[in-house]
Parts: sequence; structure tokens; C-alpha cells
Amino acid sequence: MGNSDITVADYLIFRLKEIGVDHLFGVPGDFVLGFFNQVLKSGLAYVGTCNELNAAYAADGYARIRGVGAFSSTYGVGELSAINGVAGAFAERVPIVVITGSPSTINFRNRPLLHHTLGDYQIPLRLYEKITAASTELVSAEMAPAEIDRVLSVCLSHQQPVYISLPADVVMMKCPYPEAFLFPPNLGSDPDVLGEAINEATEMLNNAEKPVVIGDVELIRFKLQKPFADFIDKTGFPYATMMLGKSVLSEQHPQFIGLYEGDRSRDYVRNRVESADCILQLGALLTDFNTGGFTAELDAVKTISVNIRSVRIKHHVYENVSLHDFILGLSENLTRRDSATLAIQSATDGCIHRRSEHYFSDGQKPLTIKRFFDRMSHFIKDDAIVVAETGVSLFSAAELLLPKGATFIGQTFYGSIGYSIGATLGAAMAAKARQVVLFVGDGSFQVTGQDLSTMIRNHLKPVIFLINNDGYTIERVISDHPYNDIQPWQYHKLVEVFGGGLGFDVHTEGELEAALAIAVTADQLMFIEIHTGRLDCPKALVSAGQSLAIANQLD
Amino acid sequence: MGNSDITVADYLIFRLKEIGVDHLFGVPGDFVLGFFNQVLKSGLAYVGTCNELNAAYAADGYARIRGVGAFSSTYGVGELSAINGVAGAFAERVPIVVITGSPSTINFRNRPLLHHTLGDYQIPLRLYEKITAASTELVSAEMAPAEIDRVLSVCLSHQQPVYISLPADVVMMKCPYPEAFLFPPNLGSDPDVLGEAINEATEMLNNAEKPVVIGDVELIRFKLQKPFADFIDKTGFPYATMMLGKSVLSEQHPQFIGLYEGDRSRDYVRNRVESADCILQLGALLTDFNTGGFTAELDAVKTISVNIRSVRIKHHVYENVSLHDFILGLSENLTRRDSATLAIQSATDGCIHRRSEHYFSDGQKPLTIKRFFDRMSHFIKDDAIVVAETGVSLFSAAELLLPKGATFIGQTFYGSIGYSIGATLGAAMAAKARQVVLFVGDGSFQVTGQDLSTMIRNHLKPVIFLINNDGYTIERVISDHPYNDIQPWQYHKLVEVFGGGLGFDVHTEGELEAALAIAVTADQLMFIEIHTGRLDCPKALVSAGQSLAIANQLD
Repeated sequence: MGNSDITVADYLIFRLKEIGVDHLFGVPGDFVLGFFNQVLKSGLAYVGTCNELNAAYAADGYARIRGVGAFSSTYGVGELSAINGVAGAFAERVPIVVITGSPSTINFRNRPLLHHTLGDYQIPLRLYEKITAASTELVSAEMAPAEIDRVLSVCLSHQQPVYISLPADVVMMKCPYPEAFLFPPNLGSDPDVLGEAINEATEMLNNAEKPVVIGDVELIRFKLQKPFADFIDKTGFPYATMMLGKSVLSEQHPQFIGLYEGDRSRDYVRNRVESADCILQLGALLTDFNTGGFTAELDAVKTISVNIRSVRIKHHVYENVSLHDFILGLSENLTRRDSATLAIQSATDGCIHRRSEHYFSDGQKPLTIKRFFDRMSHFIKDDAIVVAETGVSLFSAAELLLPKGATFIGQTFYGSIGYSIGATLGAAMAAKARQVVLFVGDGSFQVTGQDLSTMIRNHLKPVIFLINNDGYTIERVISDHPYNDIQPWQYHKLVEVFGGGLGFDVHTEGELEAALAIAVTADQLMFIEIHTGRLDCPKALVSAGQSLAIANQLD
Repeated sequence: MGNSDITVADYLIFRLKEIGVDHLFGVPGDFVLGFFNQVLKSGLAYVGTCNELNAAYAADGYARIRGVGAFSSTYGVGELSAINGVAGAFAERVPIVVITGSPSTINFRNRPLLHHTLGDYQIPLRLYEKITAASTELVSAEMAPAEIDRVLSVCLSHQQPVYISLPADVVMMKCPYPEAFLFPPNLGSDPDVLGEAINEATEMLNNAEKPVVIGDVELIRFKLQKPFADFIDKTGFPYATMMLGKSVLSEQHPQFIGLYEGDRSRDYVRNRVESADCILQLGALLTDFNTGGFTAELDAVKTISVNIRSVRIKHHVYENVSLHDFILGLSENLTRRDSATLAIQSATDGCIHRRSEHYFSDGQKPLTIKRFFDRMSHFIKDDAIVVAETGVSLFSAAELLLPKGATFIGQTFYGSIGYSIGATLGAAMAAKARQVVLFVGDGSFQVTGQDLSTMIRNHLKPVIFLINNDGYTIERVISDHPYNDIQPWQYHKLVEVFGGGLGFDVHTEGELEAALAIAVTADQLMFIEIHTGRLDCPKALVSAGQSLAIANQLD
């Protein structure tokens, strides 16, 4: 081997660093220790988590801030514990790299009854194939470089998870040093199709008196915020976001009109969107939560709907058009409208929880969800990362008008309870200089809460609001029965068990103020347990609960 | 529909009760609430857990005591979080029934972007197919009864997990009342093959001067302890167990010679087994941990190896012979030997940690693993259930000579760290009158520890020993690097957070005595954190670590 040879492990580590992975989340186990030993010697920082599911969630949260994330664990017992976290990233298009340390290749052929195995050694691979955009088993040093490059390319071009199984005997085998990496090409557009689609869209928008734009999740995942912002600035059009696309641009933008979610929207937003004579939908996923339980009424004949590789106008579809090219072309064709003609009512005036509204605490008053989130709109800083768990937290925080530069993170489509703890760990690791605020319910916290200790261990300083409403409120609004009761924990005492951070137990507005006063200056993790009513939740969640009760034929 | 019709949910509940499931572990989520609503009205007790992985582990622990277990959760996010727990039951042949509440059938056809979904609605089923012995989607009331019966039959006849997907709209559909259930038939044997196999085995055993028996895991899973005990009593043969088969019969049996695990065995056991002139192996799985890392030296020409459906004698195999029939036939043919001729050294004289040895605590002396388990041999009561987590706990507890009637639970083949918390919950729920003792390490506890709160919530009273040795000792003995460090928790304070039980922090032998004195009379959960040395572990674990380091090519 020449001077330019490196180990397969180091090849993989090199590529991970190259695409932007600086931290590897993981849990050890014998089959992965060889890879971890190389990680420790590299510039890739290892971050141990309490369990593998949280490692996957952390990689997901990290990817939402940095653009890509990774986690690694051992064969069988480790990787299979993380499957639900990877499935969530698959559903929501979050690019994470899953690296499993596997038994040596000879075992894949001979199938001895080794610990952590299930008979056919490829069962984990077969499972991961179903929930990733690409997967590979690095069975030799010869094929490893090309396979690593292929799989990482798919991760970035599809913005979805990929899976790499690295057998223990291949870890230290030598392969050629990485060549210049072909970053996933913009797949581009068919120029004729693109031109026709842009012309038709241009004409519709030019003819429209009250156009509106909906900017959603694919703009974030495919990192198209800049062309989108340019488009909005160029045209002067008002725009709404959906839940998945929340914070695609700064919510302080003067043309931002708020959150559109069908009949769960505020009246102005709903009317403005649904009465528009042309709706330009960019990168939207029409999921149930995104559309207010499929109550969005967007007239197809007025709608231009652009996704990552296609455009639908009225009832016809253009294929092989990239979202990126389409936005650029349309920007070029359109001229700026006079905002006075566009019926823009800035979200600043209409959002439920907004910073511009004055807030005075009423000392002895028990906290309510409404008042708490009103207060939060003042607490969250510019450039903050706001993480909200599915449930009361998500449905409330979605209605916050976020300050300048703030990023919103929620698993708004897949909706796996417990996601937010790992995601907060990952996001806080990805952006140590930013304020990170987590809203999480008691039921969700019980699912995955142990990795609070990993935040403490790594000296991360998120402000965590544990909304203690005595059980699974999101399920209570669907069907209120004893299975929604949980063991009441003294959550705020966990910081003492875990060895760091400050814990608070807050029942009143005055106690909240006292805790927040400390949070503003404290240079450590804040864990603030707030007590609210058992069924205290935003109207949108009640509406969601009612429609889920009907959909699932519950009494 | 006639008077004899019931809902599909109630049909399933009826069958679960019939096969021995009295408790259903679970976590709610909208798609499963309809089924849970029927469970609440039934005689099947619902036990909510903090997360789905622990629900699966609990069902596994429950099944190891009761013969079968079950858990239920919601589609996608719930069931996929539990996959690793089901995979473990699949590997170790533990019969559990997985019930997923799924979206209504129309959605499986139309695939709307509902929360918790992944595009193809059958992805979860496709995953579960790989790690269960049978699976089904109950797409109509017409097919539901036959499918439920088929799948539950396979669960019992294969002693492995099965998967049932129950769409929300099918839950309350009506189907005929259950007919008499055909319990899985003993598949029986081909009489000619059986006869020939028994004759050959009889001759070998009659000609042997120093026969020995190894009784292992399939005797437990297929509930053959009674025929096995009769065989041992009839013949007078000495018998050893392997790790997976530990406690197949009472370890106080005078013919029990101890744990055989290749070169990790005690000298007498190893010599007695390997020098035998005929080895009768009943229901053994030759996994790495069962065989001391494949160091078992059992001469094939002296070995009769019987598994659930086959017999291997020397180098030839008899198919279509049932383990049950073979044991009965062989028992009939053999006569009792004089024990004096059989070189039986009872395990009582040779086990590492045994009750018969005197133990005097030395007050200020720091605890060691050796001394702690010596003490445990006196603390564990007759008929106790002893649960040991993979690692220091398992390798130490395996060397305990258990008292009369005690049952040992460990995930000795699949070895998923964190298993023991859920398993203890399940076992304690299954046998409320028995003493339940758990040994679990700090690293393992961090994976799944939250369901300690579920034990407290359900007034269960296990005695839990948290062995705090400052990290992943089982990995340290393989490769000792910083990824084996974990955040130090104040584990014993968790009982205060979780709202019940007594917590102790134990460093010395004297402190241990004080805690045990309370445990003997306390009518509540005991959580005793014991501190031992970072690398303090039994020799067998060091040996396992060394062979894993070699197998995985680690420095």
C-alpha cells in the first residue's frame, strides 16, 4: 500500500467531516469499538448518549441545524433500538448517516450463534433498507470507498437517512485516500419543461391581483432559503408557512403573514390564503398536521405547487423541474408589486403569542398555557433555536411569532413522542452559541428523558420547559381514559440526580418570572417544570383531537 | 349478527386471556385508543409503561414467568420503538404477542400523508415480518378470527413473537364468538425415527460409565421441565446447565453439578462434562456466551444432542423427533444408576457464590463484586425471581447457586443492554407473590431506567441492586477508552423523583447490611445503589472481553 492509503474507518470519517459532520452521536458495543477507536483519534468528536434512540434523535436535531448528522452504534441490539428515530428522519427528510459496527464478514457467511444476532445476519440491513434512501454493507476494502461515496451522495441529494454497516474486520483494512468528492449535483431541470412551467406560472401570477405564497419544508431541507428570500423580496408577495416549514425565513419579515393550517389557522391567514386568486406553494408536504387535518381549501385551478422535482399547475404536472431552478427563473420574470395592493397584514399583528404584545406577570396567578406562551414570546432571543415536542408544546409553540433569525424544530409530520429530548441535545451541540429553548410535556419526557444528563455532561445550556399537565394531554383530547395517566414525577429534581443544571418548580406567573430572571444570566442548563391544567391546551390541538377521534372511530 | 357475535377487539382479548395473558403492557397513541378502550372494559389489565421498548421487554419478562406475554402500541412511532425488544424475544425464543393499533384500512390503500406514516403503510409490517414467527394485518372482520387463531398458534408452537396489526376501523367490527381453541398440537414424532433414535441413545448411555446431561434453554421455553426432572430422577445422572438454561430445575437438586461454559467453567464442571464418555445435550443452543466463547469441547462421537425437532447422535441426524417424546422414551428405557459410580460433585460444594458458605460482613470494608454476590446467595429467597442484566451482573449472577424454586432471567444470547428493567417490571407483574431481585449496572440502567417508575406506580416491590462501577465495564474489558465513560448519576435519588420506594447509597459491607436489614421487612420497592471498582468483575467476564477483543480485531 502506498503513502496515500488510509483505513476504511478513516476514509469514512474523512468523508463525514467533509460533508459537515463534526460530532458523532453514539453508544458503544463490542462490534463498533474498532470504529470508535479510530473516531477518538480523529477530528470527529464522539458524543455518547444514554441510548441509541436518543442518538438517532440527536443526529436528526443536529442535521436540522448543520445540514447533516450522524450516529453510530453496535450491530443488532444498538441499531435496532434506533430504528424509530431513523424512520422519523426518513419521513421528514432529514439527512442522517447511520453507521453500524457489525460482526466480521466471515460471520455473515457462516452465521454462528454470536450474541446480538438473529440467525440471518442481514436482518438489520433488510430493516434499514425500508427506512433509508440508500444502504450498504462494506464487505471489503476494495468496494468501501465507492460505496461510502455513493451512499453519502444519496443522503445529501435525497435529504434522507442512509445506512452503512461496517464489519469489525474491515475497519482497519487499507483503501485509497479519498479523492475529490463529487457533491451531489443539482440534478437540474429539463430546460424546455422548466421554461414552459415558468412561463405559465409567470402569467398566472402576473394576472393575479391577490397572489399568496406558501413556503414549506422542502425549502428548509434542500437549503433553498436564500433563493426563497430573494424571491419574496423581489416580488413583494405575502407568504405564509405551514407547520413543517415554520421558520423557513425569519418570522419578523414584513411580508410574513403567519401559519396556514386549514381551518385551524387564524382567520386572517385562512381568508388571505384561501381567497387568493393565485397560490404559489413552494416545497409543501400536504400532511394532516400541515393542513389542519386536511381542511386546507386550496383551489387547484388557482394553485401552482412546486416540489423538489416537479411542478403542478392546476391539474397538470411538469416533471424534471427542480425547485431551485424554478424559484430562480420565476424571480427573474416577476417585478415587485406595491405592497399596498396585496392585503398584507403582517403576522406581527395577528399571531397568538407575539413579542410585541405587552406582558405583565400576575404573581399568584396559576400559569396557563396561553399566558405561558405569551410570556415566552418575550423570553426567546433573536437567533434562538426553539424545539417543541409533539402535543401541547408543538401546537402552542407553532403559534409563537419567532424573533429574528430563530429556528423552529419539531417532528411535525412523523410525530414521535420523545423526539425533542434527543433533538435538543443534537441542536444544542450543533450551535453552542445560540440560545436553545425546549418545550416538552411530561408524558413525552418520560419516554426519552435520560439524555437530559447528556446535555449536562457536555456543558450544554438549553432552557428546558417541562410542561407538567399530568399525563398524555394530546391523547386526552382524543379519548380521555386512564391509559393517559402517568406516574407523577418530581421532574425538577432530576437535575440533582443527573449532576448539573438548575431545577425549578413553577406553579404561578410570579414563580415563572423568578426562574426566568435567573435563566437570563445563568451560565448553565435550566430545567423549569411548569404546572398547567390537565386539559389546558390551544384550540388547534382540541380541533386535532376531535378529528382524530372521528378518524379512529372513537366514542 | 347473532347474539354470539363480538367485536374483533374483544375476540383478540378473549384469545389473549385464554392463552394466559392477564396483563397487557402498552403506550397509548391515537390509532390504538379504540383497542385500548375495549381492553379497559375487559378482564385484561392494562399496564402503561414509559416507552415502547420497555413495554416489549416487560412482555418478554412476563412471558418468561407466565409462558406468554403481550404488549400494544400505536402504529409507526410506537411499534418501531419496540423493535429491538421484539428482536430479542425472537432470538431467545420468548413468545410475545405484539399488537399495533393501525390507521383505518382505507388509508392503507390511499396512503394519505397521515402523522406517524412512512409512505408505504406496510413498512412496519415488513419490518416485523423479519423478527417474528408470524404476522398479520387484520384487514376485515371476516378474516380476523382465523388470522388471530393462526398467529397465536404459531406464537405458542414456535415459542417466538408474533405481530398483529389492527386497523382502527376494524376494532369494533363484529365477528363470530370464539370457538374452542386448538392449542398448538405437540407436533409429535415419526414413530420409526423416534424408536431408532431412542434405541441408539439408550445403548450409548447404558454403555457409558460416566454419562452427563446438559439441560438448556429449550427445556424452559417449551415447558419441558417436568419430563426433564423425571428423567433426571429416574436415571440418577448428573446434569449441568448452560447460561441460557440456568434454573431449568431447582439448583438445589443433588444431581446438579453447576454451570458449563467451556473454559470459563469451574474446573470440576468442565472436567466432569468434557471427560464424560457420553454427553446428553437436551435443548441446548450453542451460542457464544453459552459455550464460553465457543470453547466448549464436546466430542461429537460421544454426544447425543436433542433439540426441539431433531436429534443428532455422533455425526448423523434424526429429523421429526420431538424433544418431549424423546425424553419420555429415553426415561422409560433407562434404569437408575448408583450415584456413587457417577462422580457427582454437587454444585453446592463448588459454585462460586453459594448460600452454604458463611458470610460475615466487615463493616468499613469497601464492597467488591465477589463479596457482594457471596452475600446475595444468602439474601435471595426460595422461589425468588433473579433478573440479571448483561455484563458484570449477568456473569456474576450466573455463578450464584440459586435457592430452591428460584427462576433466573437474563437475555443471555441477544444481550441487549437495558433489557433487565422492563423484564423486571414484567416478571414482577407476572408473579406478585414472589421475591424479585434485579442486578443491573449503571450503564445499562441509563438506557431504559425510567420504567422503575412504572414498578413504583404499580406497587411492585422488587429489590433492585444498581451496580455503579462508573461506566460500561463490559466494554472496558474489551477496549478501555473514554466512550465507556458515562455521566455519573445519583441513582439512589431517583426513587424520590419517581415518587415511591426506598433508595440507598452503599459503599461498604456495613452499609449493605443496613440496607438489607430494611429490605427484609420493607413492604415497598428497594433501590440499592452499590459502588464497586471500575474494573471489578468476575473472571468469566474478563475472559469474554479478551475473546471479543480478538474477534473484533481490537488492540
